[in-house]
Amino acid sequence: MAPGVPSEEIARRIDAFQAGLVADGIDAALIVEASDLYYLTGTVQDAHLVVPAAGEPVYLVRRVLERARAESPLARIEPLASLRDLAPAVRAACGEIDRLGLELDVLPAARYLRYVRTFDGVEFADCMPALWRARSRKSAWEVDRIRGASLQLRAAFAAVPALLASCATDRDLQVELEHVLRSAGHQGACRFRGLNGDVFYGAVLAGPDAAVPASSDTPLGGYGPSPAVGRGPRAGRIEPGGAVTVDLVGALDGYLVDATRTFATAPLIEPLAAALRVCEEILETVEPLLVAGVSWRASYDRGLEVARAAGFGDSFMGSVSFIGHGVGLEMNEPPFLAAGLDRSLEAGNVVAVEPKLVFPGVGAVGVENTYLVRPDGPPENLTA
Amino acid sequence: MAPGVPSEEIARRIDAFQAGLVADGIDAALIVEASDLYYLTGTVQDAHLVVPAAGEPVYLVRRVLERARAESPLARIEPLASLRDLAPAVRAACGEIDRLGLELDVLPAARYLRYVRTFDGVEFADCMPALWRARSRKSAWEVDRIRGASLQLRAAFAAVPALLASCATDRDLQVELEHVLRSAGHQGACRFRGLNGDVFYGAVLAGPDAAVPASSDTPLGGYGPSPAVGRGPRAGRIEPGGAVTVDLVGALDGYLVDATRTFATAPLIEPLAAALRVCEEILETVEPLLVAGVSWRASYDRGLEVARAAGFGDSFMGSVSFIGHGVGLEMNEPPFLAAGLDRSLEAGNVVAVEPKLVFPGVGAVGVENTYLVRPDGPPENLTA
Repeated sequence: MAPGVPSEEIARRIDAFQAGLVADGIDAALIVEASDLYYLTGTVQDAHLVVPAAGEPVYLVRRVLERARAESPLARIEPLASLRDLAPAVRAACGEIDRLGLELDVLPAARYLRYVRTFDGVEFADCMPALWRARSRKSAWEVDRIRGASLQLRAAFAAVPALLASCATDRDLQVELEHVLRSAGHQGACRFRGLNGDVFYGAVLAGPDAAVPASSDTPLGGYGPSPAVGRGPRAGRIEPGGAVTVDLVGALDGYLVDATRTFATAPLIEPLAAALRVCEEILETVEPLLVAGVSWRASYDRGLEVARAAGFGDSFMGSVSFIGHGVGLEMNEPPFLAAGLDRSLEAGNVVAVEPKLVFPGVGAVGVENTYLVRPDGPPENLTA
Repeated sequence: MAPGVPSEEIARRIDAFQAGLVADGIDAALIVEASDLYYLTGTVQDAHLVVPAAGEPVYLVRRVLERARAESPLARIEPLASLRDLAPAVRAACGEIDRLGLELDVLPAARYLRYVRTFDGVEFADCMPALWRARSRKSAWEVDRIRGASLQLRAAFAAVPALLASCATDRDLQVELEHVLRSAGHQGACRFRGLNGDVFYGAVLAGPDAAVPASSDTPLGGYGPSPAVGRGPRAGRIEPGGAVTVDLVGALDGYLVDATRTFATAPLIEPLAAALRVCEEILETVEPLLVAGVSWRASYDRGLEVARAAGFGDSFMGSVSFIGHGVGLEMNEPPFLAAGLDRSLEAGNVVAVEPKLVFPGVGAVGVENTYLVRPDGPPENLTA
């Protein structure tokens, strides 16, 4: 078994979440989503985690109780056979509650409506602002997991040059790189928060297909294998001088890491060659802004300036308005380095920064690293 | 590009869904989930599909409008820039609405609460019973996709004997079989409906790990690569005489297919050898019950009887109470061949039937095919 989440790590997380609940005036939170459960308990079960704003959390497990007890350091782990028993169990754990926090961004409406009936007279609130404040400040233990995941990406990028000799299309290359990632220990599943969040191993895209936008909020899209998926590679031919963007996700012990490299089998044609140099320049220019206290939007604004100065303003980030996103147990965590967002980076944030330039009908280029934000000084590149 | 969903197919689906809305007293439905959007429009976008109980549906697309128009045969596909414009657009499409149907099983609570504010005075209802009645009766076109996906499974099962010579653990074998599936055209993503529905390519499990229950409602579980995932293979050694259950999912043009075969590198030890014969006997006994008009529970009840008669009642289906499940665009569709469910099978249902016997500390065995239910006579095995 992979090492479980250490008990002091769980205790620190619960403390941070409880401080957030107190600050937000929430009496207790009811947690059911897999990433949140893993973060706060160290194990994913079919269960409710009850976190009072003060006092001992209780993990109420439908299945599998024995595994929850074996994998989680929490002291109170109890069976919950039926949703009928939920309200009494929550009241036993927390006393009387006025405001109960829920994961409103992912909790299905049917379940929400069931809770409304179950917790008669209780007001519901969104506990995610409090939980994201905790989750977005990664601990040293968490950063170590992300470093481990980045070794998978290193193995994959190192394999690309040889694979380009045998792969005719972006899809062929993607399939081989997935195999390299899995062989290097990739956990398989990648979690993407919210409805319709199909995330896979990233996407390899060659030629004009890379410039085709998809429904996902990603700078590059692609047609996907069919309209049923609608993103990622179809079967774009890898042509000499065309760009092959390799955007991959590593995953170890739940933690993700995200990086992009652009490859070609012959010198890149213009404007792609110049654009790739501009992407590299943007990344270099933005790196010093990845420090605690700097606004989320600063990286986006600065990147756009550099792209415009090089004459590539219209190509910047394709059809999206961000240059980076937080990465952790899920692929789309705060902070969001996006247009108009004035919140500030904090020490412990882990962000993937991905300057990309998109040329419809021609292709796309880009680079991406995942960084750890430190209290001061430059960020640590976790995907060097 | 893979062939899109034919326009007559979309027209038939919309008709069937509208008939269901009328029957359920719902004036219009608002659809946002990927599988449902693909089913009703032929394309997955960041969008709302408005389906009035009578009249023309309107696909309101945030992104990507051009792709929606290229991929969907629907006549009315229009941009929707902001949720502020949603209620006026729905009223323009449907007139005044008393009851609006939503996908309550998957719609996030925050979105539901937004709709409550947006559609002042409108009553909300669950449109999924109506949509499942349509989705669970597969057309000939859909069954052809499932047949195509099953060729991927055939390639994977055929590769197992040779791979067993080089794979020391179940995880090694799983990684190689994923590569075989992808190389045979597997689309990558598999959709599993509902919260925490991490589904992957299925699971390869060897030895005692196969008998470890997981939080997912599946007969076999496994520890998974870490507690962050918590299901599937860890690194269970493939031992002579131990059972290796290979439960795989094929996926083509959105459509899934599910099958299980049990392998061993030397004659299976007892009780596994006898148990595998009983699983095969159960499947043979249950097949004639997969016909329109027979109850969902009949297969489960009959399977349990056969298991009990063989002395394996306590091992039947591990810790779950079903023997089969519908398969289509998602892995967990109706019908559910489960204890206590008295609804009846219908022609066009596609069901995976998976008798499995689980022996804690020893291992698990099982077989599984995906079948098409016909109006009368035996079902068609789509995974022969």
